[in-house]
Amino acid sequence: MRGKFITFEGGEGTGKSTQVELLARTLVKKGWDVVVTKEPGGTEVGKEIRRLLVCGDKDKMDATAEALLYYADRHIHMVQKILPALENGKIVISDRFADSTKAYQCYGYGERVSKEVVDELYRIAVGDFKPDLTIVLDIDPEKGLRRSFAKADNMAEKELRFESRALEFHTNLREGFKIIAEEEPERCVVLDADKSIDELHQSVMNVVEQRLGLFTEKCDSNHIEEIG
Amino acid sequence: MRGKFITFEGGEGTGKSTQVELLARTLVKKGWDVVVTKEPGGTEVGKEIRRLLVCGDKDKMDATAEALLYYADRHIHMVQKILPALENGKIVISDRFADSTKAYQCYGYGERVSKEVVDELYRIAVGDFKPDLTIVLDIDPEKGLRRSFAKADNMAEKELRFESRALEFHTNLREGFKIIAEEEPERCVVLDADKSIDELHQSVMNVVEQRLGLFTEKCDSNHIEEIG
Repeated sequence: MRGKFITFEGGEGTGKSTQVELLARTLVKKGWDVVVTKEPGGTEVGKEIRRLLVCGDKDKMDATAEALLYYADRHIHMVQKILPALENGKIVISDRFADSTKAYQCYGYGERVSKEVVDELYRIAVGDFKPDLTIVLDIDPEKGLRRSFAKADNMAEKELRFESRALEFHTNLREGFKIIAEEEPERCVVLDADKSIDELHQSVMNVVEQRLGLFTEKCDSNHIEEIG
Repeated sequence: MRGKFITFEGGEGTGKSTQVELLARTLVKKGWDVVVTKEPGGTEVGKEIRRLLVCGDKDKMDATAEALLYYADRHIHMVQKILPALENGKIVISDRFADSTKAYQCYGYGERVSKEVVDELYRIAVGDFKPDLTIVLDIDPEKGLRRSFAKADNMAEKELRFESRALEFHTNLREGFKIIAEEEPERCVVLDADKSIDELHQSVMNVVEQRLGLFTEKCDSNHIEEIG
Protein backbone atom coordinates (compact mmCIF):
# COMPACT_ATOMS: atom_id res chain seq x y z
CA MET A 1 0.00 0.00 0.00
CA ARG A 2 1.22 3.49 -0.83
CA GLY A 3 2.04 5.52 2.29
CA LYS A 4 0.66 8.89 3.31
CA PHE A 5 2.29 12.30 3.08
CA ILE A 6 1.50 14.71 5.93
CA THR A 7 2.85 18.27 5.99
CA PHE A 8 2.94 20.80 8.81
CA GLU A 9 2.78 24.48 7.91
CA GLY A 10 2.70 27.78 9.77
CA GLY A 11 4.80 30.76 10.80
CA GLU A 12 7.70 30.89 13.24
CA GLY A 13 7.09 29.69 16.78
CA THR A 14 3.90 27.79 15.99
CA GLY A 15 5.47 24.58 17.30
CA LYS A 16 5.69 22.69 14.00
CA SER A 17 8.85 20.71 14.71
CA THR A 18 7.63 19.65 18.17
CA GLN A 19 4.30 18.48 16.77
CA VAL A 20 5.98 16.68 13.86
CA GLU A 21 8.10 14.77 16.36
CA LEU A 22 5.18 13.90 18.66
CA LEU A 23 3.00 12.73 15.78
CA ALA A 24 5.84 10.59 14.44
CA ARG A 25 6.35 8.89 17.81
CA THR A 26 2.64 8.22 18.20
CA LEU A 27 2.40 6.72 14.71
CA VAL A 28 5.46 4.53 15.33
CA LYS A 29 3.82 3.23 18.52
CA LYS A 30 0.82 2.30 16.39
CA GLY A 31 3.10 0.23 14.17
CA TRP A 32 3.67 2.58 11.22
CA ASP A 33 6.95 3.10 9.41
CA VAL A 34 7.52 6.84 9.66
CA VAL A 35 9.96 9.18 7.90
CA VAL A 36 10.38 12.61 9.49
CA THR A 37 11.74 15.26 7.15
CA LYS A 38 11.68 18.99 6.53
CA GLU A 39 12.00 21.78 3.99
CA PRO A 40 14.24 23.34 3.06
CA GLY A 41 17.02 20.81 3.59
CA GLY A 42 15.42 17.36 3.59
CA THR A 43 18.24 15.88 1.47
CA GLU A 44 22.02 16.21 1.30
CA VAL A 45 21.84 18.63 -1.65
CA GLY A 46 18.89 20.30 0.03
CA LYS A 47 20.96 21.07 3.11
CA GLU A 48 23.26 23.16 0.94
CA ILE A 49 20.27 24.97 -0.58
CA ARG A 50 18.89 25.51 2.93
CA ARG A 51 22.15 27.13 4.02
CA LEU A 52 21.90 29.52 1.07
CA LEU A 53 18.33 30.43 1.97
CA VAL A 54 18.33 30.81 5.73
CA CYS A 55 21.78 32.20 6.50
CA GLY A 56 23.13 35.65 5.78
CA ASP A 57 21.68 39.08 5.12
CA LYS A 58 17.92 39.20 4.56
CA ASP A 59 18.44 41.33 1.43
CA LYS A 60 20.94 39.02 -0.23
CA MET A 61 18.30 37.86 -2.71
CA ASP A 62 14.72 38.72 -3.66
CA ALA A 63 11.52 36.70 -3.40
CA THR A 64 11.72 35.38 -6.98
CA ALA A 65 15.18 33.92 -6.38
CA GLU A 66 13.97 32.44 -3.11
CA ALA A 67 10.98 30.82 -4.79
CA LEU A 68 13.25 29.23 -7.43
CA LEU A 69 15.63 27.88 -4.78
CA TYR A 70 12.80 26.55 -2.60
CA TYR A 71 11.37 24.72 -5.60
CA ALA A 72 14.77 23.27 -6.52
CA ASP A 73 15.03 21.97 -2.95
CA ARG A 74 11.44 20.68 -3.07
CA HIS A 75 11.87 18.85 -6.36
CA ILE A 76 15.01 17.08 -5.10
CA HIS A 77 13.28 16.31 -1.79
CA MET A 78 10.25 14.83 -3.54
CA VAL A 79 12.23 12.74 -6.05
CA GLN A 80 14.96 11.49 -3.73
CA LYS A 81 13.13 11.08 -0.41
CA ILE A 82 9.37 11.55 -0.29
CA LEU A 83 8.23 9.48 -3.29
CA PRO A 84 10.51 6.49 -2.59
CA ALA A 85 9.32 6.39 1.04
CA LEU A 86 5.64 6.60 0.03
CA GLU A 87 6.17 3.82 -2.51
CA ASN A 88 7.49 1.71 0.35
CA GLY A 89 4.28 2.28 2.31
CA LYS A 90 5.78 4.71 4.82
CA ILE A 91 4.15 7.70 6.46
CA VAL A 92 6.21 10.78 5.54
CA ILE A 93 5.82 13.81 7.80
CA SER A 94 7.42 17.03 6.58
CA ASP A 95 8.04 20.19 8.57
CA ARG A 96 6.99 22.61 5.78
CA PHE A 97 6.28 21.97 2.08
CA ALA A 98 4.90 24.03 -0.81
CA ASP A 99 2.40 26.11 1.17
CA SER A 100 5.30 27.79 2.95
CA THR A 101 6.70 29.08 -0.35
CA LYS A 102 3.34 30.57 -1.30
CA ALA A 103 2.77 32.06 2.16
CA TYR A 104 6.26 33.57 2.47
CA GLN A 105 6.99 34.63 -1.12
CA CYS A 106 3.48 35.69 -2.18
CA TYR A 107 1.81 36.88 1.02
CA GLY A 108 4.64 37.57 3.44
CA TYR A 109 6.14 40.28 1.25
CA GLY A 110 2.83 41.75 0.14
CA GLU A 111 2.77 39.69 -3.08
CA ARG A 112 6.27 40.35 -4.43
CA VAL A 113 5.97 37.07 -6.32
CA SER A 114 2.61 36.47 -7.94
CA LYS A 115 0.56 33.42 -7.03
CA GLU A 116 0.57 32.51 -10.73
CA VAL A 117 4.36 32.29 -10.72
CA VAL A 118 4.42 30.14 -7.59
CA ASP A 119 1.69 27.89 -9.02
CA GLU A 120 3.69 27.54 -12.24
CA LEU A 121 6.81 26.62 -10.26
CA TYR A 122 4.74 24.01 -8.44
CA ARG A 123 3.65 22.50 -11.77
CA ILE A 124 7.26 22.49 -13.04
CA ALA A 125 8.87 21.07 -9.91
CA VAL A 126 6.17 19.00 -8.20
CA GLY A 127 3.62 18.23 -10.93
CA ASP A 128 0.37 16.58 -9.78
CA PHE A 129 1.79 15.37 -6.50
CA LYS A 130 0.45 16.87 -3.26
CA PRO A 131 0.21 16.06 0.45
CA ASP A 132 -2.57 13.78 1.65
CA LEU A 133 -3.02 16.06 4.66
CA THR A 134 -1.66 19.49 5.57
CA ILE A 135 -1.93 20.77 9.13
CA VAL A 136 -1.55 24.54 9.43
CA LEU A 137 -0.59 25.64 12.93
CA ASP A 138 -1.96 29.09 13.62
CA ILE A 139 -0.88 31.54 16.31
CA ASP A 140 -0.77 35.28 16.88
CA PRO A 141 2.55 36.37 15.29
CA GLU A 142 3.70 38.30 18.36
CA LYS A 143 3.35 35.20 20.52
CA GLY A 144 4.99 33.03 17.84
CA LEU A 145 7.99 35.32 17.44
CA ARG A 146 8.50 35.48 21.21
CA ARG A 147 8.58 31.68 21.32
CA SER A 148 10.91 31.61 18.32
CA PHE A 149 13.42 34.10 19.72
CA ALA A 150 13.43 32.32 23.09
CA LYS A 151 14.50 29.18 21.23
CA ALA A 152 17.13 30.99 19.12
CA ASP A 153 19.80 31.02 21.86
CA ASN A 154 20.00 27.26 21.53
CA MET A 155 20.11 27.10 17.74
CA ALA A 156 23.27 25.46 16.38
CA GLU A 157 23.05 27.63 13.29
CA LYS A 158 21.41 31.04 13.65
CA GLU A 159 18.64 30.94 11.11
CA LEU A 160 17.47 34.43 11.79
CA ARG A 161 17.19 35.71 8.23
CA PHE A 162 13.41 35.29 8.19
CA GLU A 163 12.70 35.56 11.88
CA SER A 164 14.09 39.10 12.11
CA ARG A 165 11.73 40.50 9.49
CA ALA A 166 9.11 42.97 10.58
CA LEU A 167 5.99 41.96 12.46
CA GLU A 168 3.88 43.10 9.51
CA PHE A 169 5.52 40.41 7.39
CA HIS A 170 4.54 37.73 9.90
CA THR A 171 0.99 39.04 10.11
CA ASN A 172 0.72 38.82 6.31
CA LEU A 173 2.19 35.34 6.47
CA ARG A 174 -0.44 34.16 8.94
CA GLU A 175 -3.17 35.54 6.72
CA GLY A 176 -1.56 33.81 3.71
CA PHE A 177 -1.59 30.40 5.37
CA LYS A 178 -5.26 30.85 6.27
CA ILE A 179 -6.18 31.78 2.69
CA ILE A 180 -4.26 28.80 1.30
CA ALA A 181 -6.02 26.46 3.74
CA GLU A 182 -9.44 27.89 2.85
CA GLU A 183 -8.76 27.32 -0.84
CA GLU A 184 -8.09 23.60 -0.31
CA PRO A 185 -10.26 22.44 2.58
CA GLU A 186 -10.09 18.79 1.47
CA ARG A 187 -6.31 18.84 2.04
CA CYS A 188 -5.78 21.45 4.77
CA VAL A 189 -6.82 21.84 8.39
CA VAL A 190 -5.99 24.93 10.46
CA LEU A 191 -5.35 24.26 14.16
CA ASP A 192 -5.13 26.87 16.91
CA ALA A 193 -1.53 26.54 18.16
CA ASP A 194 -2.01 28.80 21.19
CA LYS A 195 -2.36 25.92 23.65
CA SER A 196 -0.14 23.49 25.50
CA ILE A 197 2.07 21.06 23.55
CA ASP A 198 0.01 18.09 24.74
CA GLU A 199 -3.33 19.72 23.93
CA LEU A 200 -2.10 20.61 20.44
CA HIS A 201 -0.79 17.07 19.93
CA GLN A 202 -4.23 15.75 20.82
CA SER A 203 -5.79 18.07 18.21
CA VAL A 204 -3.24 16.87 15.63
CA MET A 205 -4.02 13.22 16.37
CA ASN A 206 -7.74 13.85 16.07
CA VAL A 207 -7.25 15.40 12.62
CA VAL A 208 -4.93 12.63 11.45
CA GLU A 209 -7.46 10.03 12.58
CA GLN A 210 -10.45 11.83 11.02
CA ARG A 211 -8.75 12.51 7.70
CA LEU A 212 -6.52 9.45 7.23
CA GLY A 213 -7.66 6.89 9.80
CA LEU A 214 -4.07 6.03 10.69
CA PHE A 215 -4.73 5.16 14.32
CA THR A 216 -7.30 2.48 13.63
CA GLU A 217 -5.30 0.82 10.83
CA LYS A 218 -2.37 -1.39 11.70
CA CYS A 219 0.87 -2.51 10.18
CA ASP A 220 3.66 -4.93 11.15
CA SER A 221 6.88 -2.99 11.44
CA ASN A 222 8.01 -0.45 13.97
CA HIS A 223 10.55 1.94 12.63
CA ILE A 224 11.31 5.65 12.48
CA GLU A 225 13.81 7.32 10.22
CA GLU A 226 14.84 10.87 10.85
CA ILE A 227 16.20 12.86 7.96
CA GLY A 228 17.75 16.27 8.13
CA MET B 1 22.90 55.58 -22.90
CA ARG B 2 22.00 52.06 -21.87
CA GLY B 3 24.91 49.64 -22.30
CA LYS B 4 24.98 46.41 -24.28
CA PHE B 5 24.75 42.84 -23.05
CA ILE B 6 26.86 40.29 -24.94
CA THR B 7 26.81 36.58 -24.08
CA PHE B 8 29.14 33.78 -25.13
CA GLU B 9 27.72 30.29 -25.39
CA GLY B 10 28.98 26.85 -26.39
CA GLY B 11 30.14 23.50 -25.04
CA GLU B 12 33.29 22.69 -23.07
CA GLY B 13 36.63 23.61 -24.62
CA THR B 14 35.23 26.01 -27.21
CA GLY B 15 37.37 28.81 -25.79
CA LYS B 16 34.60 30.97 -24.36
CA SER B 17 36.47 32.40 -21.38
CA THR B 18 39.53 33.26 -23.50
CA GLN B 19 37.39 35.04 -26.07
CA VAL B 20 35.40 36.88 -23.40
CA GLU B 21 38.67 38.16 -21.97
CA LEU B 22 40.09 39.22 -25.36
CA LEU B 23 36.91 40.99 -26.39
CA ALA B 24 36.78 42.82 -23.05
CA ARG B 25 40.37 44.05 -23.44
CA THR B 26 39.73 45.22 -26.98
CA LEU B 27 36.59 47.10 -25.95
CA VAL B 28 38.39 48.73 -23.03
CA LYS B 29 41.10 49.93 -25.43
CA LYS B 30 38.33 51.51 -27.50
CA GLY B 31 37.22 53.42 -24.42
CA TRP B 32 34.26 51.35 -23.23
CA ASP B 33 33.43 50.53 -19.61
CA VAL B 34 33.31 46.75 -19.57
CA VAL B 35 32.03 44.28 -16.97
CA VAL B 36 33.16 40.68 -17.44
CA THR B 37 30.97 38.13 -15.72
CA LYS B 38 29.84 34.52 -15.97
CA GLU B 39 27.14 31.99 -15.18
CA PRO B 40 26.71 30.24 -12.94
CA GLY B 41 28.37 32.25 -10.21
CA GLY B 42 28.41 35.89 -11.34
CA THR B 43 27.43 37.15 -7.87
CA GLU B 44 28.34 36.29 -4.28
CA VAL B 45 25.16 34.26 -3.79
CA GLY B 46 25.63 32.85 -7.28
CA LYS B 47 29.05 31.48 -6.37
CA GLU B 48 27.38 29.33 -3.73
CA ILE B 49 24.81 28.13 -6.28
CA ARG B 50 27.64 27.42 -8.73
CA ARG B 51 29.38 25.24 -6.16
CA LEU B 52 26.17 23.25 -5.73
CA LEU B 53 25.85 22.77 -9.48
CA VAL B 54 29.35 22.01 -10.69
CA CYS B 55 30.88 20.05 -7.80
CA GLY B 56 30.11 16.52 -6.68
CA ASP B 57 28.56 13.43 -8.20
CA LYS B 58 26.90 13.93 -11.58
CA ASP B 59 23.78 12.09 -10.36
CA LYS B 60 23.29 14.17 -7.24
CA MET B 61 20.33 15.96 -8.84
CA ASP B 62 18.26 15.70 -12.01
CA ALA B 63 17.85 18.14 -14.91
CA THR B 64 14.72 19.79 -13.48
CA ALA B 65 16.53 20.66 -10.24
CA GLU B 66 19.49 21.95 -12.23
CA ALA B 67 17.25 24.16 -14.37
CA LEU B 68 15.64 25.67 -11.24
CA LEU B 69 19.04 26.37 -9.68
CA TYR B 70 20.46 27.87 -12.88
CA TYR B 71 17.47 30.19 -13.12
CA ALA B 72 17.81 31.22 -9.47
CA ASP B 73 21.45 32.09 -10.18
CA ARG B 74 20.46 33.90 -13.40
CA HIS B 75 17.74 35.97 -11.78
CA ILE B 76 20.10 37.13 -9.02
CA HIS B 77 22.84 37.79 -11.60
CA MET B 78 20.50 39.87 -13.75
CA VAL B 79 19.01 41.90 -10.87
CA GLN B 80 22.19 42.50 -8.88
CA LYS B 81 24.86 42.84 -11.61
CA ILE B 82 23.78 42.90 -15.23
CA LEU B 83 20.91 45.40 -15.16
CA PRO B 84 22.67 47.94 -12.90
CA ALA B 85 25.77 47.85 -15.15
CA LEU B 86 23.69 48.28 -18.31
CA GLU B 87 21.85 51.19 -16.73
CA ASN B 88 25.25 52.78 -16.14
CA GLY B 89 26.06 52.49 -19.84
CA LYS B 90 28.52 49.61 -19.47
CA ILE B 91 29.17 46.73 -21.83
CA VAL B 92 28.45 43.50 -19.95
CA ILE B 93 30.03 40.34 -21.34
CA SER B 94 28.90 37.07 -19.80
CA ASP B 95 30.52 33.66 -20.18
CA ARG B 96 27.22 31.72 -20.55
CA PHE B 97 23.63 32.83 -20.01
CA ALA B 98 20.18 31.33 -20.63
CA ASP B 99 21.01 29.43 -23.82
CA SER B 100 23.31 27.16 -21.82
CA THR B 101 20.43 26.03 -19.61
CA LYS B 102 18.33 25.16 -22.64
CA ALA B 103 21.21 23.42 -24.42
CA TYR B 104 22.30 21.39 -21.37
CA GLN B 105 18.99 20.62 -19.67
CA CYS B 106 16.79 20.19 -22.78
CA TYR B 107 19.16 18.93 -25.47
CA GLY B 108 22.19 17.58 -23.62
CA TYR B 109 20.19 14.95 -21.78
CA GLY B 110 17.97 14.06 -24.71
CA GLU B 111 15.21 16.46 -23.56
CA ARG B 112 14.87 15.44 -19.93
CA VAL B 113 13.43 18.89 -19.29
CA SER B 114 10.98 20.14 -21.89
CA LYS B 115 11.67 23.35 -23.79
CA GLU B 116 8.30 24.62 -22.54
CA VAL B 117 9.48 24.29 -18.93
CA VAL B 118 12.77 26.08 -19.62
CA ASP B 119 10.93 28.83 -21.53
CA GLU B 120 8.52 29.22 -18.61
CA LEU B 121 11.45 29.47 -16.16
CA TYR B 122 12.93 32.16 -18.42
CA ARG B 123 9.68 34.15 -18.24
CA ILE B 124 9.53 33.77 -14.45
CA ALA B 125 13.17 34.61 -13.75
CA VAL B 126 14.29 36.85 -16.61
CA GLY B 127 11.06 38.27 -18.07
CA ASP B 128 11.43 40.23 -21.31
CA PHE B 129 15.12 40.89 -20.87
CA LYS B 130 17.57 39.27 -23.31
CA PRO B 131 21.12 39.70 -24.60
CA ASP B 132 21.76 42.24 -27.36
CA LEU B 133 24.14 39.75 -28.94
CA THR B 134 24.91 36.08 -28.34
CA ILE B 135 28.01 34.49 -29.82
CA VAL B 136 27.86 30.69 -29.97
CA LEU B 137 31.31 29.11 -30.26
CA ASP B 138 31.05 25.85 -32.13
CA ILE B 139 33.56 23.00 -32.22
CA ASP B 140 33.59 19.23 -32.70
CA PRO B 141 32.92 17.84 -29.18
CA GLU B 142 35.89 15.46 -29.26
CA LYS B 143 38.27 18.35 -29.91
CA GLY B 144 36.53 20.51 -27.31
CA LEU B 145 36.71 17.85 -24.61
CA ARG B 146 40.41 17.21 -25.32
CA ARG B 147 41.09 20.93 -24.85
CA SER B 148 38.97 20.98 -21.73
CA PHE B 149 40.66 17.99 -20.08
CA ALA B 150 44.10 19.38 -20.92
CA LYS B 151 43.13 22.49 -18.97
CA ALA B 152 41.66 20.53 -16.02
CA ASP B 153 45.02 19.80 -14.36
CA ASN B 154 45.33 23.50 -13.68
CA MET B 155 41.83 24.06 -12.38
CA ALA B 156 41.70 25.39 -8.82
CA GLU B 157 38.42 23.62 -8.30
CA LYS B 158 37.75 20.48 -10.30
CA GLU B 159 34.52 21.26 -12.08
CA LEU B 160 34.29 17.92 -13.77
CA ARG B 161 30.69 17.10 -13.06
CA PHE B 162 29.60 18.06 -16.57
CA GLU B 163 32.84 17.50 -18.43
CA SER B 164 32.93 13.80 -17.54
CA ARG B 165 29.55 13.07 -19.14
CA ALA B 166 29.45 10.90 -22.21
CA LEU B 167 30.47 12.16 -25.63
CA GLU B 168 26.89 11.64 -26.83
CA PHE B 169 25.77 14.25 -24.34
CA HIS B 170 28.23 16.79 -25.77
CA THR B 171 27.18 15.99 -29.31
CA ASN B 172 23.54 16.63 -28.35
CA LEU B 173 24.64 19.83 -26.64
CA ARG B 174 26.37 21.13 -29.79
CA GLU B 175 23.25 20.38 -31.81
CA GLY B 176 21.14 22.16 -29.18
CA PHE B 177 23.19 25.35 -29.36
CA LYS B 178 22.87 25.34 -33.16
CA ILE B 179 19.09 24.92 -33.01
CA ILE B 180 18.78 27.72 -30.44
CA ALA B 181 20.89 30.04 -32.62
CA GLU B 182 18.82 29.22 -35.71
CA GLU B 183 15.61 30.07 -33.85
CA GLU B 184 16.84 33.59 -32.99
CA PRO B 185 19.11 34.75 -35.83
CA GLU B 186 18.61 38.42 -34.91
CA ARG B 187 20.28 37.76 -31.54
CA CYS B 188 22.65 34.83 -32.17
CA VAL B 189 25.71 34.22 -34.32
CA VAL B 190 27.47 30.84 -34.52
CA LEU B 191 31.26 31.03 -35.00
CA ASP B 192 33.54 28.14 -35.93
CA ALA B 193 35.85 27.83 -32.89
CA ASP B 194 38.23 25.34 -34.51
CA LYS B 195 40.86 27.97 -35.30
CA SER B 196 43.62 29.85 -33.53
CA ILE B 197 42.77 32.12 -30.59
CA ASP B 198 43.71 35.22 -32.59
CA GLU B 199 41.72 34.20 -35.65
CA LEU B 200 38.67 33.50 -33.51
CA HIS B 201 39.07 36.83 -31.71
CA GLN B 202 39.09 38.54 -35.12
CA SER B 203 35.83 36.76 -36.02
CA VAL B 204 34.32 37.84 -32.69
CA MET B 205 35.32 41.47 -33.27
CA ASN B 206 33.83 41.41 -36.75
CA VAL B 207 30.50 40.17 -35.37
CA VAL B 208 30.47 42.70 -32.51
CA GLU B 209 31.16 45.50 -34.98
CA GLN B 210 28.55 44.34 -37.50
CA ARG B 211 25.81 43.76 -34.91
CA LEU B 212 26.46 46.48 -32.34
CA GLY B 213 28.94 48.91 -33.94
CA LEU B 214 30.96 49.13 -30.73
CA PHE B 215 34.32 49.72 -32.40
CA THR B 216 33.30 52.81 -34.30
CA GLU B 217 31.48 54.43 -31.37
CA LYS B 218 33.48 56.07 -28.62
CA CYS B 219 33.20 56.86 -24.97
CA ASP B 220 35.27 58.69 -22.36
CA SER B 221 36.27 56.32 -19.63
CA ASN B 222 38.60 53.38 -19.62
CA HIS B 223 37.73 50.80 -17.07
CA ILE B 224 37.31 47.06 -16.72
CA GLU B 225 35.64 45.28 -13.84
CA GLU B 226 36.02 41.57 -13.46
CA ILE B 227 33.42 39.70 -11.50
CA GLY B 228 33.56 36.07 -10.43
